[in-house]
Amino acid sequence: MTSVEETLAVKGYTLPEPPDALFNYVPYVVSGNLVFVAGQVPIGGARDYKGKVGVDLTLEEGQEAAAQCALNLLAQVKDAVGGDWIRLQRCVKLGGFVNSGPDFTDQSVVLNGASDLMVDALGEAGRHARFAVSAPSLPAGFAVEVDGVFEIVP
Amino acid sequence: MTSVEETLAVKGYTLPEPPDALFNYVPYVVSGNLVFVAGQVPIGGARDYKGKVGVDLTLEEGQEAAAQCALNLLAQVKDAVGGDWIRLQRCVKLGGFVNSGPDFTDQSVVLNGASDLMVDALGEAGRHARFAVSAPSLPAGFAVEVDGVFEIVP
Amino acid sequence: MTSVEETLAVKGYTLPEPPDALFNYVPYVVSGNLVFVAGQVPIGGARDYKGKVGVDLTLEEGQEAAAQCALNLLAQVKDAVGGDWIRLQRCVKLGGFVNSGPDFTDQSVVLNGASDLMVDALGEAGRHARFAVSAPSLPAGFAVEVDGVFEIVP
Repeated sequence: MTSVEETLAVKGYTLPEPPDALFNYVPYVVSGNLVFVAGQVPIGGARDYKGKVGVDLTLEEGQEAAAQCALNLLAQVKDAVGGDWIRLQRCVKLGGFVNSGPDFTDQSVVLNGASDLMVDALGEAGRHARFAVSAPSLPAGFAVEVDGVFEIVP
Repeated sequence: MTSVEETLAVKGYTLPEPPDALFNYVPYVVSGNLVFVAGQVPIGGARDYKGKVGVDLTLEEGQEAAAQCALNLLAQVKDAVGGDWIRLQRCVKLGGFVNSGPDFTDQSVVLNGASDLMVDALGEAGRHARFAVSAPSLPAGFAVEVDGVFEIVP
Repeated sequence: MTSVEETLAVKGYTLPEPPDALFNYVPYVVSGNLVFVAGQVPIGGARDYKGKVGVDLTLEEGQEAAAQCALNLLAQVKDAVGGDWIRLQRCVKLGGFVNSGPDFTDQSVVLNGASDLMVDALGEAGRHARFAVSAPSLPAGFAVEVDGVFEIVP
């Protein structure tokens, strides 16, 4: 067990198997020192996070969904570094989309679920730039989608 | 005629002239080994792909629109490598926005139109990370907008 | 006073102090030659740019909001280069989200407020790739959010 999994376990999180890309794309691409990870949805967690945050899901459930997206991003990154966490330099950037209606204004609060998970898992190396916006709808009705850029030792 | 154009021709596609950026920005920027291509809309194809997918356009038309965006991305990349396809290493990342209403859930299906085109054109080098989300509206009412990051030999 | 601030002053703009990231993320991350700047909202300007462009704000006000986002991006970049503008090579990419309703089609016009500011400030080095899309809502109800990628000399 490596430190990232250990750290996550202390917080009550389990790193899932990296979700497959379902179509004609790949879960991540490594280019130089950067890993571009495809947008992750909140699958593999305690429940099915579908619907609009603020309508079908509470803010807390939205944060849990965002945390699950972050776990899935880390699962992809683990695969990208061949399980060798020492090769992971840092989380560079997260792009967060919240499934919500036109009056929702707590996108940042929802995305904190992902940002906090990343810092819980990686410490200072988990601190990242990000955007947090709404989308009127997301694939399969998921509540949150988050993509990411990470820096690794190639 | 180079292999990418030949491959696309076999599939019935023609690479357009790279669309101009209409305002005070540029169609692409090269930074190191990466080409960042501006968001492309589905112009230059068989028809005008405007409106909301699932309302004004069928899923199939949405996929055609996404494929046209991918063609326009490739046209920009061709320009970025001075027409020398051997310098194109791979498609790294696509960011896809589908113009749709709040109940639409087939963003991934629509974006497959772009992903499939990219793999048709480039083979394994066309496989990319991506996100697929909805936008409530897009510039000039276009049905899809896709931006991209590509790796090249500078 | 360096040239970017001087140039902006001639145009009537003042570079603000770089806005803090409010939560568990950081305003920018440097990775190699690239600076990934977090999504900036239009704070620190002449007024509070909140609401939907085309409904609560005019197109011109939307452009002002986008320009304010661009100023905030530049303020972050200034911090990233330790105030040494000579280290800034260029603006590579802007990602623009406009808070608007489902019938809005002038996302490009709004984002020109950011693109023009960037070129006003940096000249040719300010010309960038970009996407311009709508979001149904944005954090705290802001009218525009823009993130950016810049190239620097590390």
